[in-house]
Amino acid sequence: MTSSPVQHVYDDSDLITQEVLKRYEDTPDPRLRELMQSFIRHMHSFVREVKLTPDEWLAAMNLLQETGKWCGPGRNEFIIFSDAMGISMLTITQDYQRPAGATEPTLIGPFMLENAPQFEMGTDISAGAQGSPMFAHGRVLDQAGQPVAHAVLDVWHSDDRGLYDVQEDLETKGPWARAQLRTGADGRYSFWSVLPVDYPVPHDGTAVTMLRATTGRNWRPAHLHFRIQAEGQKPLVTHIFDRQSKYLDEDAVFGVRPSLIGDFVRHEAGQAPDGRAMTQPFYTLDYDFVMVPPKA
Amino acid sequence: MTSSPVQHVYDDSDLITQEVLKRYEDTPDPRLRELMQSFIRHMHSFVREVKLTPDEWLAAMNLLQETGKWCGPGRNEFIIFSDAMGISMLTITQDYQRPAGATEPTLIGPFMLENAPQFEMGTDISAGAQGSPMFAHGRVLDQAGQPVAHAVLDVWHSDDRGLYDVQEDLETKGPWARAQLRTGADGRYSFWSVLPVDYPVPHDGTAVTMLRATTGRNWRPAHLHFRIQAEGQKPLVTHIFDRQSKYLDEDAVFGVRPSLIGDFVRHEAGQAPDGRAMTQPFYTLDYDFVMVPPKA
Repeated sequence: MTSSPVQHVYDDSDLITQEVLKRYEDTPDPRLRELMQSFIRHMHSFVREVKLTPDEWLAAMNLLQETGKWCGPGRNEFIIFSDAMGISMLTITQDYQRPAGATEPTLIGPFMLENAPQFEMGTDISAGAQGSPMFAHGRVLDQAGQPVAHAVLDVWHSDDRGLYDVQEDLETKGPWARAQLRTGADGRYSFWSVLPVDYPVPHDGTAVTMLRATTGRNWRPAHLHFRIQAEGQKPLVTHIFDRQSKYLDEDAVFGVRPSLIGDFVRHEAGQAPDGRAMTQPFYTLDYDFVMVPPKA
Repeated sequence: MTSSPVQHVYDDSDLITQEVLKRYEDTPDPRLRELMQSFIRHMHSFVREVKLTPDEWLAAMNLLQETGKWCGPGRNEFIIFSDAMGISMLTITQDYQRPAGATEPTLIGPFMLENAPQFEMGTDISAGAQGSPMFAHGRVLDQAGQPVAHAVLDVWHSDDRGLYDVQEDLETKGPWARAQLRTGADGRYSFWSVLPVDYPVPHDGTAVTMLRATTGRNWRPAHLHFRIQAEGQKPLVTHIFDRQSKYLDEDAVFGVRPSLIGDFVRHEAGQAPDGRAMTQPFYTLDYDFVMVPPKA
């Protein structure tokens, strides 16, 4: 039992990969089989390429467990990691080559909530959120430039602290700056809310710790989130970014597309586009969305 | 805005990968930079290879969030996924080519707890766990065959239902079948507990759902977990498996190594190896561990 030749079941570490892939060959659903086997092959390649150590592996497992603790209604911390590694945008960009003129999609982010409060078109959705008044309006159009009637718009965005409602206690303080609206026959949308601002990736989770230790870029340029659904149209998940933001070129999550940059125009007190008399300065955004049919 | 040529920021989807990798170039720590860039490249390759759709991506994000809910003290559901995809074993097998005669390591599993209750060598660690009495004993040796004194052994295992203490309420019912023991000058270890049995991957989590939908193999052969730490020796994390198990060839998590199969020998009522008079049948396991120095 003194010095002796190396002997190991998996001297050729390819063996374990082969064994695992063979086992997953039994997966009944062909798409799930393809996904699992490809994921396993790429993960094994990663582990080999960097010669991941057991200690690093354990740190990763602990990070995943810790990340789970930061999840809850309207916050999925894992999505921030995916966003911050460009994985989310890659799935979106490779999904569908939209025709020119179609509004580009971008990432959904970690803060989406289903069943948002419903508001009448043109009303104030801020629900107590603090910030400068903002009136957003425009049209939902189809590829031929015709209005899309009965489109369902979900809107959600930050307040002037750069926080979302889900980052506070939703039960007692929210929801705010979050709404679902429906277009009429004219395809028009409009709502009052507060101006979104630039904000850092949530300062209290695991994703921001990773970003601080890596890219050092953990800010998002100010934006409104939209999800638009309508019969016969491919659902559109996107943002409209504020052209004034200094973070357009270094979005922490690679979500900016030039076509999604809008003008949040400042106005002095006076009459707003919807006729409302404003006693303080306010902002307006005028942006049209162009939907396209689903993939054939 | 009628039919028009395809136009997209990321027509060449390599661009997004290049953009992300370039951003992570700024990671100050060289090892972290290497890990992140390699992981991102392999994840992007996976997403491209299977053409992962946004819906599949969202399902994965929801699965990660859901998996986080199954974690808690002594249970990390993410480890089960890693184990079930052979990732854990790969990190172990590529870590260190141990010399012949050294005890092989295997995976730590999801149920390890730091700060296990301390027991005197030779005593009963079952602490109320149900099952057939079992006496496990042997030696902790170094590479030269000499006893390793003052080695710290962590032991944890299932009861006769195939459950671990952490799968019940630890506060009120546990810990049980979980102990930390220290060898004396002779390097010997021994303890009484209950015989572990074959068990399925936890039936109430997300990992077992994945296994049922894929390999269909979600059982683990009966085993004892050991972690052994001693000064001057590489820490050893391993199992001893029961040769009688029918699952040795299809461990859900690819952990079995032939050298780790032990004989859990059944005895009729009578005197046990430590002199204890047994009024019912009992089992014995005699297994020596051989530790090796850390990597140079």
